[in-house]
Amino acid sequence: MRATYMYGPGDVRVIDVPDPTIRTPTDALVRVVRACVCGSDLHPYHSMPPTPQGSSMGHEFIGVVEDIGGDVHTVRKGDLVIAPFAWSDGTCDFCREGLQTSCRHGGFWNSGDVGGGQAEAVRVPLADGTLVPVPVEEDSPLIPSLLTLSDVYGTGYHAAVRARVDAGTTVTVIGDGAVGLLAVLSAEQLGAQRIILMGRHKDRTDLGQEFGATDIVAERGAEGIAKVHELTGDGTHVVIEAVGHMPAYQQAVGVVRPGGVISRVGVPQYENAPVGFDSLFGPNITLTGGPAPVRAYIDRLLPGVLDGSVDPGKVFDREIGLDAIADGYRDMDNRTALKVLVRP
Amino acid sequence: MRATYMYGPGDVRVIDVPDPTIRTPTDALVRVVRACVCGSDLHPYHSMPPTPQGSSMGHEFIGVVEDIGGDVHTVRKGDLVIAPFAWSDGTCDFCREGLQTSCRHGGFWNSGDVGGGQAEAVRVPLADGTLVPVPVEEDSPLIPSLLTLSDVYGTGYHAAVRARVDAGTTVTVIGDGAVGLLAVLSAEQLGAQRIILMGRHKDRTDLGQEFGATDIVAERGAEGIAKVHELTGDGTHVVIEAVGHMPAYQQAVGVVRPGGVISRVGVPQYENAPVGFDSLFGPNITLTGGPAPVRAYIDRLLPGVLDGSVDPGKVFDREIGLDAIADGYRDMDNRTALKVLVRP
Repeated sequence: MRATYMYGPGDVRVIDVPDPTIRTPTDALVRVVRACVCGSDLHPYHSMPPTPQGSSMGHEFIGVVEDIGGDVHTVRKGDLVIAPFAWSDGTCDFCREGLQTSCRHGGFWNSGDVGGGQAEAVRVPLADGTLVPVPVEEDSPLIPSLLTLSDVYGTGYHAAVRARVDAGTTVTVIGDGAVGLLAVLSAEQLGAQRIILMGRHKDRTDLGQEFGATDIVAERGAEGIAKVHELTGDGTHVVIEAVGHMPAYQQAVGVVRPGGVISRVGVPQYENAPVGFDSLFGPNITLTGGPAPVRAYIDRLLPGVLDGSVDPGKVFDREIGLDAIADGYRDMDNRTALKVLVRP
Repeated sequence: MRATYMYGPGDVRVIDVPDPTIRTPTDALVRVVRACVCGSDLHPYHSMPPTPQGSSMGHEFIGVVEDIGGDVHTVRKGDLVIAPFAWSDGTCDFCREGLQTSCRHGGFWNSGDVGGGQAEAVRVPLADGTLVPVPVEEDSPLIPSLLTLSDVYGTGYHAAVRARVDAGTTVTVIGDGAVGLLAVLSAEQLGAQRIILMGRHKDRTDLGQEFGATDIVAERGAEGIAKVHELTGDGTHVVIEAVGHMPAYQQAVGVVRPGGVISRVGVPQYENAPVGFDSLFGPNITLTGGPAPVRAYIDRLLPGVLDGSVDPGKVFDREIGLDAIADGYRDMDNRTALKVLVRP
């Protein structure tokens, strides 16, 4: 089959690899209907050490179950399924607590002998815990919105839930990528009183306003911080950081209100950051967030997608075939595409 | 009057200074009945830049109101009052939210023209918002416990509240100083299921057990982390860091359970710390805490002190006169005293 591999910065190729097969009785084999490129895929696209064997790519996909192992009971051949970006058993204590990203037996796509979603098919371990069947056909117009439940919608929602957004909360979202925009939608769904979106791409911030942003701040750094203070007096109760680079972290520290929360869902491209008296400690700021256990949120978010009351799939502004995926990476990297849907 | 000043590392002196006076109508003048030395006073005791004019010291005191300004209405001459370690107006939005350490008009002792508590008397700004009168005499045996409401008890309680300790929570407390021990007491009061105290001074950890610690871990660093994992499997839901040095932070990261909370109340002696994928982000750890708005907790904690159901004053294991305060600093620094009560 055809699958996407990355070999170094900017070097994305679609190559032939052996077809995946069922290996253990809890596996399912899923033919990919739609995958996509994630903002977090751009981190290795910028900085991965070149490697001759390459790394398989993709962690968001929706597909049709082609085969199942003997111990799989909750999905059947022919089911259309959503695959969260982490696979998990669904039964351990962490899964039961809703932290499937820390599942005792789970893992992430593209590690060990598990491939990625930017391919024609994927072997899915722990299929019962991982996959969520949905009652739609593979040509449904709901597919893009359902695909956001693999990662970006659940990730935006996680950011808002971890920050305990509710009615009365003022929120700043840093980053106008798909996660940032869906964090806006999530904050709106949780009742946030005011949502300031910091982003500088008008087509994206326009979508952010459609999702519920009440204010747009295009400035960045000190200027952006000053603008949020001008709007709010003291910053906002919650800041959702949906970028992952240090300047975004610093911006978050700059716009959070004393006693407030910074919730990070952009994968940090740094290990150390300011957390001392002058940044977090003095004003009693809470820092939270992490990889979203999106599996935990699908039950909650799926009904709104199925009944059409929300349309998170609007973050996709381009659709390409798998063989053109290198163009998809390039266009997302140079910001001419917001999020690219991939049709194998 | 006599007041304590610090001039550099290890250099604490009691000197004569002008008597404080009422300066604005919202001031009160308080004669100090008991003050004490704080673990956080040891940070400048180790590392303050030498300064010829010195810095006044002390931020915990209980005293008798000697005089009030014309706009003071909630305390009267002769009242015995608790002074929280931050003064605050009690009326701004932050005070109403219970974050008096961020009061719009408040501040901290020993800054600007406001002196410190390790002295015979203190001018208290914003007396109505700051001082809490208590119905006891100045020779009451309750005085040491009441004095802990100035800082260490409220600070331990803040750590537990910010970490949302409740029934079913497992907690590790790092640090067997007064704040750590009173964090144990606070976690116990909030219903924690298990409380592991990390400390290596037996007299202190014995008191910790009396306050509710279920396990003691004397080891530190990697050994201490391994011990907590041996006891718990995955670490504890909550880690209260009551020290402020980087090794304690690293220990906290090492013993917190995925999805858990590190709550800091030790004043950080660092600005940057690990917060990236490998420390906080990957396992969805929340970092919280800061200077405790102890004023907010006095109403909640005072009844238990007054009716004797808790005795946080047990953290005081020495009482000295003001002129001997340099000995008090020395003894706390070399750990021969846990917490020193000062009688001006």
